[in-house]
Amino acid sequence: MQRGKFITFEGSEGCGKSTQIHRLVEALRERGLDPVLTREPGGTVIGEKIRHLLQYDSEAARLTAESELLLFAASRAQLVRELILPALEAGRWVVADRFLDSTTIYQGVGRGLDPEAVRRINAFAVGPARPDLTILLDLDAATGHARAVRASGAKEDRMEAQPLAFFEAVRHGYLALAEAEPDRIAVIDASTGIAEIAAAITALLESRFPGYVT
Amino acid sequence: MQRGKFITFEGSEGCGKSTQIHRLVEALRERGLDPVLTREPGGTVIGEKIRHLLQYDSEAARLTAESELLLFAASRAQLVRELILPALEAGRWVVADRFLDSTTIYQGVGRGLDPEAVRRINAFAVGPARPDLTILLDLDAATGHARAVRASGAKEDRMEAQPLAFFEAVRHGYLALAEAEPDRIAVIDASTGIAEIAAAITALLESRFPGYVT
Repeated sequence: MQRGKFITFEGSEGCGKSTQIHRLVEALRERGLDPVLTREPGGTVIGEKIRHLLQYDSEAARLTAESELLLFAASRAQLVRELILPALEAGRWVVADRFLDSTTIYQGVGRGLDPEAVRRINAFAVGPARPDLTILLDLDAATGHARAVRASGAKEDRMEAQPLAFFEAVRHGYLALAEAEPDRIAVIDASTGIAEIAAAITALLESRFPGYVT
Repeated sequence: MQRGKFITFEGSEGCGKSTQIHRLVEALRERGLDPVLTREPGGTVIGEKIRHLLQYDSEAARLTAESELLLFAASRAQLVRELILPALEAGRWVVADRFLDSTTIYQGVGRGLDPEAVRRINAFAVGPARPDLTILLDLDAATGHARAVRASGAKEDRMEAQPLAFFEAVRHGYLALAEAEPDRIAVIDASTGIAEIAAAITALLESRFPGYVT
């Protein structure tokens, strides 16, 4: 059996990831690929508990940058071994809403942790589950921030409560990653409409995985 | 103001750590040293939530070794920065029930993770909070196992449910660490009575920190 493909989506809040991911999963399903959709942090029972600690717990504001990084990594280590690797080995495609690049950006660039330490901890957590393709939905920081705040309303989580400068740093960090790993990370302009972005993603998949229509 | 001392206790379950720690804290208090007692995993609000995930959650049995290591490290990173370093800087003594060596042993030796990866993740979590003295309460595996099972009764946690061979590996791992770091780690025979062990600990402190009586 052929190993499935592992596709991750990245981008700052408000870039439209969720919408595009659901469209892609639906499209893959129509092609008979039985995709698995997951998200980070979370995706397993343990991971969802860690997600709650990170995002909604009343104590989350006291989390140190180091502890935050390690909690993301713990969630990821579990997700990789409990869900992603078994699915890929069974020939299924896996689509992840955020994966290792989010940590490189949010904890490395955003929180100012040592990039080499972040890279090593990431590598330990991810193990052999490197994405085959990462789709970066790129959006200017002001638009992303405004969309994120509007969408979350009163229930702003910790990341969305960051100032605009944080969104700027995130965007530039992502673009630098994409420049460093052009074979894995594809940048898609997320300032256009939903249908245009979806069409760009379809074209990208067709060029990267020519035989992926079953 | 003189920086406080950081003392950690290690040893397999059933070695009598809790009893000795409480006696030491009481003795330090009588000497006017205003000690802080903490434990791992846990010691902060976030850390105690992580402790619950690790030890008592119904999902804990599904934790991968990698995720377990990262959760311990997350708890430790928080403990160091929220509690240990500020206390030491304020001149207080800190006594910890388990610290980095527990991870080296339980996750490295016990779970078979790459020792170098464990060491690096430990170092990241611990930062500048290296113990001034680590007291290893050494006990043969069969006695420790029997005591731990008797003490925990029906509420066996995950570590205590391990087979005897695991306790053997833990003991030998600890003794090897003590051989490698004799200046930091002192081995005390925990097969004698409570009073004898307490006297040995007092003698050890008096030799290591001659001026510690205020």
